[in-house]
This record gives sequence, C-alpha cells and structure tokens, in this order.
Amino acid sequence: MLKTPRTKLTRVPDRGHHDTETLYAILDEALIGHVGFVTKTGHPAVIPTLIARDGDTLLIHGSNASRTVRALRAGTEACIEVTHVDGIVLARSAFHHSMNYRSAILYGTLEQAPDKERALELFTEKLIPGRWEHVRWPNPKELKATEVLSLPLHEGSAKVRSGPPGDDEPDYELDTWAGVVPITATRGEPIPDPLLRAGIATPDHVRALTDR
Amino acid sequence: MLKTPRTKLTRVPDRGHHDTETLYAILDEALIGHVGFVTKTGHPAVIPTLIARDGDTLLIHGSNASRTVRALRAGTEACIEVTHVDGIVLARSAFHHSMNYRSAILYGTLEQAPDKERALELFTEKLIPGRWEHVRWPNPKELKATEVLSLPLHEGSAKVRSGPPGDDEPDYELDTWAGVVPITATRGEPIPDPLLRAGIATPDHVRALTDR
Repeated sequence: MLKTPRTKLTRVPDRGHHDTETLYAILDEALIGHVGFVTKTGHPAVIPTLIARDGDTLLIHGSNASRTVRALRAGTEACIEVTHVDGIVLARSAFHHSMNYRSAILYGTLEQAPDKERALELFTEKLIPGRWEHVRWPNPKELKATEVLSLPLHEGSAKVRSGPPGDDEPDYELDTWAGVVPITATRGEPIPDPLLRAGIATPDHVRALTDR
Repeated sequence: MLKTPRTKLTRVPDRGHHDTETLYAILDEALIGHVGFVTKTGHPAVIPTLIARDGDTLLIHGSNASRTVRALRAGTEACIEVTHVDGIVLARSAFHHSMNYRSAILYGTLEQAPDKERALELFTEKLIPGRWEHVRWPNPKELKATEVLSLPLHEGSAKVRSGPPGDDEPDYELDTWAGVVPITATRGEPIPDPLLRAGIATPDHVRALTDR
C-alpha cells in the first residue's frame, strides 16, 4: 500500500500498518464504510454505505439517482474510512482511557465497475455467503437503476489498538480496577418475514450467519 | 433540527427524521462518529473518533498535536456521521437485499469547548457510567495536551431502516427464505489488566457494562 504524507501516522506510529494483509482483513470483516468527499459547493460530506472488496479494489453501490453516486462517478476524490470497535479500555487515569479498534482509511477516485451483475453477486455473497443461488437475480431494469463504483486499493493505511491499558507508572499503585470490556458485533436468531410463505424453513446459509 | 437542502432526503424520504429525539438517541447510543472535513489542500478526510453529547452540542476530543484537531479548531467545516448497523435484510430478490440501520449526519463548525475537564468527565461517564469517581483525574499537563471541540446540533438529519424486506409483488410467490438477521454490539466479560494489583475485584460499574 502506497505511503504518502497523509497515510503516515504522526502521533502513535506503533499503531499504523501499511501491509495489505492487515488492511484487507479490516475491509473484509466490515459491512459498512464511511465515504467522505467534497461536494460541488466545497462542503464536506460523509455517507455510510455497504462495501465489498474485489481483489485490489473496493466496491460501493447505490442508486443511479443518489447524489453521492453522481458526485463520485463524476471523478470526485473520496476518502473511505472503515472502523471496528473492539473494546472499551479502562485505565487507572481518566486520561489513558481508550478504545480498542481496527480502522482503515483509503484515498482515491472511484470508477464505474465494469460488470455490475458480478459486483452485485459479490455484495450479496459478502453479506450472506451462499445466498446468490437462492435469490431472484437482478433484471435489466434493476441493473440500470444501480450504479457500482470501484476504488483502487492503492493509497491508504490501517490503525490498530489492542490489549490492556497503558497507564503512567505511578498510577499502577492505585486501587482502581483496570482492563478491557470487549465489544463484538453479534448476529442473532433469524427473524422470518411475516409475509414468508408457509413451509419455508430457515436454510443453512441463513443459519450460518448467526453467532452461537 | 434545521432542514436544509443537504439534510433533505431525496431518495427514500420515509426513512428521514429531523426530530431531536430520534437524532439524540442515535448519538447517545454511539461510541464512535466519523468526522469528515476538507483539508487545507482541498482533499476529503474522514477520521473515526469518540463522541459524547452535551445538551445541544456534540463533543469530540483529541490530542492538541492531531492534524484533525488543528484543522477543525481553525474553523474548518465538518460533517459528522454516526451509524448503527442493526441487521441484514434478506429479500427474495438480490435487488431488495438491504441493511437495517440508524444513522445521523450532522453539519457545522466546531468550537473549543469551554470546560475541558467537565467534557472529559462526560466522555468517561458516557463510555462507563459511574467511572469518573474511581479514576485519577486529569492533571494540568494532561489537560493541556488535550483539546475538546464542540459541534452545535443545529443542522442535520437521521435516517432509519427497520423491519422486514420489501419485495416486488410477484417475488412473494418464490420459495426463497426472507427475513432479517439482527446485529447487536455485544459487550463481553471484562478482561482484567495483567498488571492489575492483586485483590482488586471487578467493580459494579464495570460489571454493569457487560450484556447478559
């Protein structure tokens, strides 16, 4: 991953990573990315959107009518940020309280993805592995209404904090409890659509989504 | 909350909310916000950061040395986005697959918060209610190293999707399972700091953080 002045971590450089393995793992686990861009009138905008990685590109999609899609398709530069919150870090001092997290920040300009249907298959399979063969595939009207944009994964960096708090030496003598409360995104039991036809059992690819 | 052209939902207006009750509930449940701004050189930047609401303002904090803090303190306009991912929505058609989510997007210019120590108490108590009285409070050096910035909650909107998929009428006849797989941010058992002094039990305010 290209290192540039803006991807260099200046403050806590130990937390910085530029290897694709770390970066791609963060992207692949994330459902949502936060897409920042500058509007035509010069204002900042940030929009949450589904992401899916396709090799060395990151895909986003949206309605052709969306203002964000139209701005990005026109070649507006983007910054896409992805963050997993992994825990609350409780230190002995207020100052050293922190979060455990894994974040990625990517920069670049998006292009139209060449094969929209394949991209939509990637999105579906990322959200729910094994789903694509069970659903009604996009028709020409739906494909026309959808835009898929692709960011080359060229310039960016990851930042990771993990583990226990780091307190100032004298504070280790205090009676204060210190440690980490982990946070996980947990998937619960599938809730069938009230309009689901009778006799359709929850299939394996849906059961597999739920954490046990 | 002020309605402006950029806070008006053009595509799926039913999902839009401008009432402070909806918006503040989304902010209060979120640990992290995604702060977008335009850098001095005109590029978009998005940074994840802790947020805490103080009445009708949203606080963020960071090191005085941080590039983001310095840019925002100088009066750079910001867009702060907050999103909770509540579930994966499985439709009968690929096209109608979706996410359940609650998001907020806020616009404005941040100012230095007048009382840094009170703001740090708010951040600590937001992360861990009841924590402040147990920790070593910030000393003058730590307060000096920290900046707290405040965004007036004046212009913004929320967007919420919940409930089952919405399929096209003919697709309800398909044999495909449809419904929602809920996602929750779950807090696990506290992990004591390996350097915790012997004999310090997990206090109630830490136990209370863990979901049961």
